[in-house]
Amino acid sequence: MLETIALERLKKALCALPGVGPKTAQRMAFHLVGRDREGARALSEAITGALQSIRRCKRCNNFSETELCPVCSSPKRNAAQLCVVETQADLESIEMSKAFSGTYFVLMGHLSPLDGIGPEELGLDRLQRLLDEEDIEEVVMATNPTVEGDATADFIAQLVRQHGIRVTQLARGVPVGGELEYVDRNTLAGAFRGRKDL
Amino acid sequence: MLETIALERLKKALCALPGVGPKTAQRMAFHLVGRDREGARALSEAITGALQSIRRCKRCNNFSETELCPVCSSPKRNAAQLCVVETQADLESIEMSKAFSGTYFVLMGHLSPLDGIGPEELGLDRLQRLLDEEDIEEVVMATNPTVEGDATADFIAQLVRQHGIRVTQLARGVPVGGELEYVDRNTLAGAFRGRKDL
Repeated sequence: MLETIALERLKKALCALPGVGPKTAQRMAFHLVGRDREGARALSEAITGALQSIRRCKRCNNFSETELCPVCSSPKRNAAQLCVVETQADLESIEMSKAFSGTYFVLMGHLSPLDGIGPEELGLDRLQRLLDEEDIEEVVMATNPTVEGDATADFIAQLVRQHGIRVTQLARGVPVGGELEYVDRNTLAGAFRGRKDL
Repeated sequence: MLETIALERLKKALCALPGVGPKTAQRMAFHLVGRDREGARALSEAITGALQSIRRCKRCNNFSETELCPVCSSPKRNAAQLCVVETQADLESIEMSKAFSGTYFVLMGHLSPLDGIGPEELGLDRLQRLLDEEDIEEVVMATNPTVEGDATADFIAQLVRQHGIRVTQLARGVPVGGELEYVDRNTLAGAFRGRKDL
């Protein structure tokens, strides 16, 4: 091959990014080296900088540059409400909706025995400790509405109830702005079961 | 926002990659910082390494770690045949096909007056010099079969003919393995015009 070693190494490293295969990695590598060396330099530095300064909040697992993340340390947030999410990305989405003013607990994914992900891998021991030590009044389960997410929610709900704390779950129904024609059967069935008086 | 500054910077830097928008950049950033710190470190280093060691071949513009790229410096390649391509990626594709054993000249894109890309931006002055200085017998135009690519090929063909050198162009026709049903009209029309005796 006529490829340079440094280029091969760059392509391989780019494949570490989610959703990037060999072909995309090649396009990215060519772009970085051939057309946007300034952007490439900035990217390399941004990665190093992020690795150095970002860790996880010791209370909720959220990304943070300080020991406690901005959400956990904010006096404006209601620490008695705890929203359990599967990932950092879910937390971001909820924050964007501005629908929740409590604090979070970020799981490290969902229960998946086949992949060797049990309660410990999710950080549930830390959630237990949090429930022990703080005055939580409500835990809102915001795991994904999938089989794995529901199983995870059920498992955690049991654990929370042992502490005598109220557990709730996000409502299921037809998505706002969607067209009924394209809503799947399970969602429709759930929306019927959960129908409300007008 | 509850985002850390370092994370914001990383997301922005990732948007420099082709095909990566804010949403994908976020997913990539979370992955790098949260799940694959080792891969993130490797990526940062690979970028820096590539920037340091990769430059352009002074004869053909191909990426190279040395002054002359492996193709130009190989004694096995026929330097009398010169294949003109629009980009590095096109060169790679042709190399993969193993259909060509000459050398290349990589343009910096195609002529696009609206974007301010004229003959100079493509590096045609260097191509001129190459035609002056070396004994080239054939120039194969392998620009993209698009309006811009064809315009670029025509422009360069004139230039090459002034040197009394033979100019050829890749054949146009139905792609091997494709189904006629899905071949576009222009390609079909071109294939009919270029039909050959069996």
